[in-house]
Parts: sequence; structure tokens; C-alpha cells
Amino acid sequence: MTTAISPTTLALGEYPQGPAPLPSWNEGSAKQSIIDFVRAVTTTGHPHFVKPEERIAVFDNDGTLWSEMPAYFQLAFVFDRLKALAPQHPEWKDKPLYAAVLQGDMKAVAAGGLRGLLELATVTHAGMTTDEFAKIAEEWIATARHPKFNRPYTDLIFQPMLELLAYLRANGFKTFIVSGGGVEFMRVWADKVYGIPPEQVIGSSIVTKFEMVGGVPVLTRLPELNFMDDNVGKPVAINMHIGRRPIAAFGNSDGDLQMLQWTTAGTGSRFALLVNHTDSVREYAYRVSTLGKLNVALTEAKAEGLDCRGHVDLCIQLPTKYRTHLPECAEIFKDEIRLERLAKDHP
Amino acid sequence: MTTAISPTTLALGEYPQGPAPLPSWNEGSAKQSIIDFVRAVTTTGHPHFVKPEERIAVFDNDGTLWSEMPAYFQLAFVFDRLKALAPQHPEWKDKPLYAAVLQGDMKAVAAGGLRGLLELATVTHAGMTTDEFAKIAEEWIATARHPKFNRPYTDLIFQPMLELLAYLRANGFKTFIVSGGGVEFMRVWADKVYGIPPEQVIGSSIVTKFEMVGGVPVLTRLPELNFMDDNVGKPVAINMHIGRRPIAAFGNSDGDLQMLQWTTAGTGSRFALLVNHTDSVREYAYRVSTLGKLNVALTEAKAEGLDCRGHVDLCIQLPTKYRTHLPECAEIFKDEIRLERLAKDHP
Repeated sequence: MTTAISPTTLALGEYPQGPAPLPSWNEGSAKQSIIDFVRAVTTTGHPHFVKPEERIAVFDNDGTLWSEMPAYFQLAFVFDRLKALAPQHPEWKDKPLYAAVLQGDMKAVAAGGLRGLLELATVTHAGMTTDEFAKIAEEWIATARHPKFNRPYTDLIFQPMLELLAYLRANGFKTFIVSGGGVEFMRVWADKVYGIPPEQVIGSSIVTKFEMVGGVPVLTRLPELNFMDDNVGKPVAINMHIGRRPIAAFGNSDGDLQMLQWTTAGTGSRFALLVNHTDSVREYAYRVSTLGKLNVALTEAKAEGLDCRGHVDLCIQLPTKYRTHLPECAEIFKDEIRLERLAKDHP
Repeated sequence: MTTAISPTTLALGEYPQGPAPLPSWNEGSAKQSIIDFVRAVTTTGHPHFVKPEERIAVFDNDGTLWSEMPAYFQLAFVFDRLKALAPQHPEWKDKPLYAAVLQGDMKAVAAGGLRGLLELATVTHAGMTTDEFAKIAEEWIATARHPKFNRPYTDLIFQPMLELLAYLRANGFKTFIVSGGGVEFMRVWADKVYGIPPEQVIGSSIVTKFEMVGGVPVLTRLPELNFMDDNVGKPVAINMHIGRRPIAAFGNSDGDLQMLQWTTAGTGSRFALLVNHTDSVREYAYRVSTLGKLNVALTEAKAEGLDCRGHVDLCIQLPTKYRTHLPECAEIFKDEIRLERLAKDHP
């Protein structure tokens, strides 16, 4: 035993590192920057050390943990639900938006915009108890298939992100989903697929109402939006549900910008990353799509010291290869953006 | 080594029990019923075994974990804030409700009812960022004193409930607060006082708004109610924040009835308890008060199989002595109600 602690020992942090982390990530500055960050916040005595209970990491879901193309996967659920419910709603044939879905006219559906999609989502997600909805969502996710890959949607998750979740957890982080997706839709499978338990899944929601039905207390789902967990809603939801400012945030589109801003504006060392999908052959190129746009966020993140308030000390964009869960697209090219404060600014 | 496991070994459950649990609780059926429940749900192979991740216990705060008399402690904070802000609001002198607070006329304040109190709460809790509010609440809780006991409010917590929290946690439970109190007010001190981290505190809230102020992303608190976490709101909030049905719930007033109903209506073994404060000398007798009434909940809990949907198989009311954190009131008499399903009904 010696009282002197070598830098190497310190660099290991207080958690056992186990096998080399992030094996599916390319060697490069993206991977290295994550490892450097994690070592800093987990190493006792390091100026950026963070107590385990404050190691909160937040992840967008659509486009960050799993694919969101050709459209948010939950939309496929909405459309399937609408078709299943149509026989009970003959009046839908006379409603252009509903008829468009029933006829598979996705152009007309898209013309209804986000407002139209939200209406379809609330209508198809309401009218049952929370227990009944969970069962419906569970059955759907087990049987539905992605149109391009012909696989369950829960297969279309990104292996590097699974490794990142595991790596952070092994280092004492609590990992949360903060998604625009429906919270009760995601909770059905998020634990099994990502190892993220229901109480760490934050999402959009419709109004639920407690009532006694036949002497049984139930929560009935109403066709009314309760909360939209996107854009400016993400920091609001993080504050409401977690009550601590995360120290790391991961997203892929403009809807994640405010979450990244909120995270990186805290004191100490902060880490944020935007995944930019650019491979239209093996997966999809997202920036050219109408959904999940990566435009403002990328531009603002690039403009050092603007949206990130002078706290972006390192704002790099590196082409890097990610492997996915899919053998078919074993290497998806992505760019990544890293926003991190410098130690000297935030003692 | 022997393959036979004695019933005694099984009864110890999968978690080490440590010293005898609940030392401040009277020996009796209340204490015994909690221990029996915990042993059942933590003993591998027991028909009522519950996986650790599903061992969710929810606690009301006011009147359950700490006292709520002579009025909800947060109201003292509201009144102190109003007085501190009054110089900047000369117009308040002409508003009867506000003037009543400034003049200390609590009868007139009470005449404003819950609606009036809510207005005062939102006005005094808004107009600053979430970070600023946390600082204000932190300073207040550190310096304010209870009018009867002349001690910090955080001293007025119930020792038996602290032991219950610790006992449940030692047995793999995750403990949550589900309170009508303000979520951001409670989070400031709940971790220090109860060992309940911010992400496990659920409460009422006002609207917050994400905005960039001088290039800094902030959450600004607006004078508008966002969610009232009481009565029917409690199961809604539990579902929204936790996404699992608790297996144990603890409350003290009518506002907790729906939370207890929601909890006990789940499958398997469920535990619910209502604390009834009856000692007006050493603490307060709550049932006679206007706030924190225990009326409907007690009556309904007593009426076996009514509000509890035939699932109340055991509904007992036992006088029992609790010790509190206060030496001055070392023994507070409380009644307790226990609602528990029978094993045979819920395999």
C-alpha cells in the first residue's frame, strides 16, 4: 500500500470500468470525448467530479435511440389503430384526414401537418383505461414490422447507443428518456429494449382521468393533449419529472436543442451530443426529411457561443461510423456534435 | 449445506434485515402487518413475491411524513413570501385577501377558501426562475420556525415514518412522495430530511416556461396552476411520473383516498395505511380541523368492500402509539387503518 495515487489509478474513476467501453464506436474524438467526460465526473478528487446521485443523463428516443424513419414509429401505431377502429366509426370516411389514412394516402395525411397528426394520435390513443392501452401497445409492438427492414421496430435501435447507456450506468449514471413520443407507448417496451424503467421514461401525454367504473378505480384516457414533450417542453419536463439538471444530453434533431441548452448551461462539466443521420442507403438521411429535422440545432451548435451562451468551448463535427443493431446496416455514417464547457469557466 | 430451506430462512426475505425494524413503533398488529407484508413481497418463492423494481411505495407528505398543523407548512412560506414582497406591491393593501394576510387576520384568509390560498400560492411562488425559487425556499426552510414548537419545520417529521422509509428501502423498495404540496418547494429539503431524491418527489406545480434571458436558458415560474396533486390527481400523477402502480401507499386524509384505492386495486399483495392524528395536546387532532380532514377516507375504508371494491379483506382500526422526532411529544396517539387484499383473491 502506498499513499500516492498515480494518475492512472485516478483515471479509472471510482467505478470498475470492466471491458473496454463503447466497442461499436469508431476510435476517434467522439468516443474519446465521452470517455474523458465520464472519467472526469466519476473520479474522486477530480475538479469535475459529480456525486453519483447527480449523474443524470437524458436521451431523446426517436432518431437517437431508435430510428425515426420513414416516420416516427408511433405514427405507424396511430395509423394501424385508426384502421382497426374504423368499422366502429363510419363517420371517419367523410373526414378527409381520416379517410386519407384509411386509403393509405400519406401525402394527404402529411398535408394535415403536425396538428392533424396530433389529432389522430389523441383520438386513437384515447377511450380506454391506461391498463387497456398498455395491452394494445404491447400487442402492436410485438407484431408490427418496419416497412423497409421488415423487422420489429424494437430491432431498429442503435447498438452504439445501447453501449453508451450501459457504459453510463456502469459509471453510476441514471439514464432517462426525454422524448416527444407518448410516455405510455414507450413505457411498454423501453425497459426490455433499453433497460430504462417506466419511472425514467418522460414523454408526451394525453389527459387521464381517475374514476370509479363498476366499483373499480381506473384511469381513463381522454382525447385531449396533456403535455407535448418537445422543443421548449423538454427542459420543462426534465425539471418537472427529474428536478435536477442533467449533466449529459443526447439528441438528434431541432426538437432537442432546448434540452441540450438546458443541460450544458449548468455548472461544472457538461456533455451534449447530436446524432446526424446521413446514410440514406443503409438507414435514412434525416436532415432532408420533413420530420425530425436537424437544422436550427446544428446551425446554432456550430455557431460557437451563440445559442450555447458562450459556454460551447468545443464544438466539433466529425464524420464517424456507427454500427447498428441491424446486420443489414452494419455501418451507418453519422456526424456528431459535441458541446462541452471548459473547466476554467465552471469551477 | 442442505437443500431444504427452513421457513425461518425464507421469512428473512432476500434482503438482510439488519437490526429489528421499526423500533419506534408499538408492538402490535399495525407494526406486525407491515413486517408481514414486506416479508411476503421480498421472499423469493412466496406467492406474493414482487420483483425489486416493482416495489414502489408512495407517501403523502403533509400529515403523513411531517405535521400539517396548525396549517400546511407551505402556507407559512406563502404568507412570509407575501409579506416580503408587499413593499413592491402597494396595490395589495386594497385587495381584501392580501390585506388579511398582511394584517395577520387568519380568519379572513380562511374565508377565502382553498381558491384564495391557491391564488396566494401561485402569486408568491411565481415571477422568478426555478433556480431562484429553490434558493428562496432553501433560505426559508432553514430559518422559519413552527409557531407551537418553535423549531424548524423540518424537525416536525415523524420518527416512525422515517423508520418505515428506511425499512422499505432496505428491502428493495423505491420510496416516492406524492403530495399536494409544491413539488419544487419539497425538493429543496426532501432528500436531506427523508432521503427521497428530487426525481422521486411528486407534487403540485405551477406552469414553468423555457426561455432565453440575456442568452441564458432559464425556466421562469408563471403565476398559473399547472397541476393539483391531490384527491383524484394523485393516481394521475403516480401514473404520469412513475408509470407503475405502487404496492404500498401511506396517507392521512381524504386527499389520499384515491391514491390508496389505486394502490390497493392492483394485483397481488397491496398495503395501505391511513394515519389518524388524535392527540391535540402533544401534537394536533387533525379530524376536527378544516384542513387535512380525515372523514370520507376513514368512513369509506371502514365500510369494507365499498370504496375499496370488495378488495378490502382486512380493514382494522387500532389505537397505537407513535413516537415522533420531537422529544416534547414523544408519544403521539394515532389510529391506523390497514387495507390489504387477501392472497386467495389475487394469486
